[in-house]
Amino acid sequence: MQVLILAGGSGTRFWPLSRKLRPKQLLALEGERSLLRETVERLQPLAGPESVWICTTRALADAVRRDVPEVPAGQILLEPEGRNTAPAIGWSVRSMPEAVRRGPVAVLPADHRIGDPAAFRAALATAARAVVADDRVMTLGVTPRWAETGYGYLELAPGAEADGLRRVRRFVEKPDAQKAEALWRSGHHLWNAGIFVFRGTTLLELLERHQPELARGLEEIAAAPGRLGELYGRLPADSIDYALMEKLDGLSTLPLDCGWSDLGSWEALDEILPKDAAGNAARGDVVAVESSGNLLFSEGGTVAVLGVEGLVVVRTGDAVLVMPKERSQEVRKIVAALQQSGRGELL
Amino acid sequence: MQVLILAGGSGTRFWPLSRKLRPKQLLALEGERSLLRETVERLQPLAGPESVWICTTRALADAVRRDVPEVPAGQILLEPEGRNTAPAIGWSVRSMPEAVRRGPVAVLPADHRIGDPAAFRAALATAARAVVADDRVMTLGVTPRWAETGYGYLELAPGAEADGLRRVRRFVEKPDAQKAEALWRSGHHLWNAGIFVFRGTTLLELLERHQPELARGLEEIAAAPGRLGELYGRLPADSIDYALMEKLDGLSTLPLDCGWSDLGSWEALDEILPKDAAGNAARGDVVAVESSGNLLFSEGGTVAVLGVEGLVVVRTGDAVLVMPKERSQEVRKIVAALQQSGRGELL
Repeated sequence: MQVLILAGGSGTRFWPLSRKLRPKQLLALEGERSLLRETVERLQPLAGPESVWICTTRALADAVRRDVPEVPAGQILLEPEGRNTAPAIGWSVRSMPEAVRRGPVAVLPADHRIGDPAAFRAALATAARAVVADDRVMTLGVTPRWAETGYGYLELAPGAEADGLRRVRRFVEKPDAQKAEALWRSGHHLWNAGIFVFRGTTLLELLERHQPELARGLEEIAAAPGRLGELYGRLPADSIDYALMEKLDGLSTLPLDCGWSDLGSWEALDEILPKDAAGNAARGDVVAVESSGNLLFSEGGTVAVLGVEGLVVVRTGDAVLVMPKERSQEVRKIVAALQQSGRGELL
Repeated sequence: MQVLILAGGSGTRFWPLSRKLRPKQLLALEGERSLLRETVERLQPLAGPESVWICTTRALADAVRRDVPEVPAGQILLEPEGRNTAPAIGWSVRSMPEAVRRGPVAVLPADHRIGDPAAFRAALATAARAVVADDRVMTLGVTPRWAETGYGYLELAPGAEADGLRRVRRFVEKPDAQKAEALWRSGHHLWNAGIFVFRGTTLLELLERHQPELARGLEEIAAAPGRLGELYGRLPADSIDYALMEKLDGLSTLPLDCGWSDLGSWEALDEILPKDAAGNAARGDVVAVESSGNLLFSEGGTVAVLGVEGLVVVRTGDAVLVMPKERSQEVRKIVAALQQSGRGELL
């Protein structure tokens, strides 16, 4: 089984910790290792580094190679620019030797958290078996743990198959609070985690059928690798969900219960970090006096708080961010303000 | 007229900006110059640097000399250790040549703010004239602008004399909120600002009468300056208010209306800083989004806030402090926590 890790993302949700050249997947948010490195390590013994492919951007090449030196250099694929997941997955799979892409390929985001790696590997293995046996396309969905409005959902068709496999009836967009409550309570919806397993050859065939322009572009690149920079920029920049998965009849899924989080915000990180007696989550050098329920994160220097509640306080070498936890999704407003005032060096 | 500036203080109220070797008087809180430097500069043209004496501690000697190089080196007096204001004032006055200390001496704290220097100089000049004419001891009290609980008060005897001089009936300790309200509204109480004017020789006579032990110690030091380190440590460590001023009948005062603040906390600093449209006071590199009424202070690095109100956020090279403005007086709790955990390098 091959594993393709998508590591080209460049988010702003963890500003000031995340930066253009140090995006979320390269951050050590929970432990001492980056999310990318943890993604590679938790695959063992199911898939060793020799089976790992990483798709990232040229700008991040050096940082990624330093972070996971055990992954063969030839399997770190460098997009000239980020163009969403459909081109990244299509191009990466097309770049694998034909004998390799005939087998099962798992696609994983590089920046998610998995609390129970053994359960995760077991599900991947089950999915790979189903892919090989029936030539299915699988997506792993996460059993919802609350009425989350920040995720898309997979609606399940009734009836389980062998090994707990389910059929996906349709994709559901990120819901509002009321709808999220209904989806969560329905018992037949999963969080869409962006994890896929398929034969590489099957994926390319499906792209040819559903996204002929993209498929044609990928063949052009394969025929003239020297023109990658020019050709890649012309591929339609869609997500794999939109470009393909939502269009498939008979997409299969396996409900995953492995402490998954997409770590989509400071608040999401806070949910999984251990807390002190006052409910503060702390990373780095932190002093909290008469304060509770805060996320306190220092990358150098002391963060001291007195008499505050429910705040995110982050200190990096050149910046500090303070905001209420529940407004974590709005970090982009700070990023936009910095952009508007010509402070690109902070992004 | 000679001016003695007391610059030996070592407070923690402006942590993390203030440190043992960079106490409040050496900080540029409002403008670009330290409070000590502003204290020296605002005396001109009433008293030039050649008339300025500074009493500080040995530990701060270099920093003080660098900060006000125009003050003659021989007039920067170095206490072996801080022992409160009575020894500092007594020893400094006794260190002046006899011809000098026969004239009027004004004693000023090095770490106060004066919004209207011209009014301040006028009051000092009036006080000095009264001192010379009638050999009075004067204290300058500040006309209260609100019911402050953080200051002591001077109760005035009825009836003004020439030049607006008043007599002090008694000193009033820092009041609770209800009493502060009454003092403020009474119309015959002033804030005790710790500013005094007297003939140096008169001060030494009064110390001999009211604090014979201190006076004897000062004569011993004068007779054996080489034993300063040993002898200074034995002087009774009292404040000049307690040791002398509260004991005097006929202490005179002059109500001062000059935008005075003792800048006793981050909140007190906030009161005098200019605000943006959302009521935020900012120093340094600051970005505030949907936030109001905060004091945002950066000494290097960007401070970004989103959706917060009424906070103090301070960033220095090695620390960050976040707390509600109204809890500014409690910074000492952070300092105590750092001390207890052996983090003296941050103090």
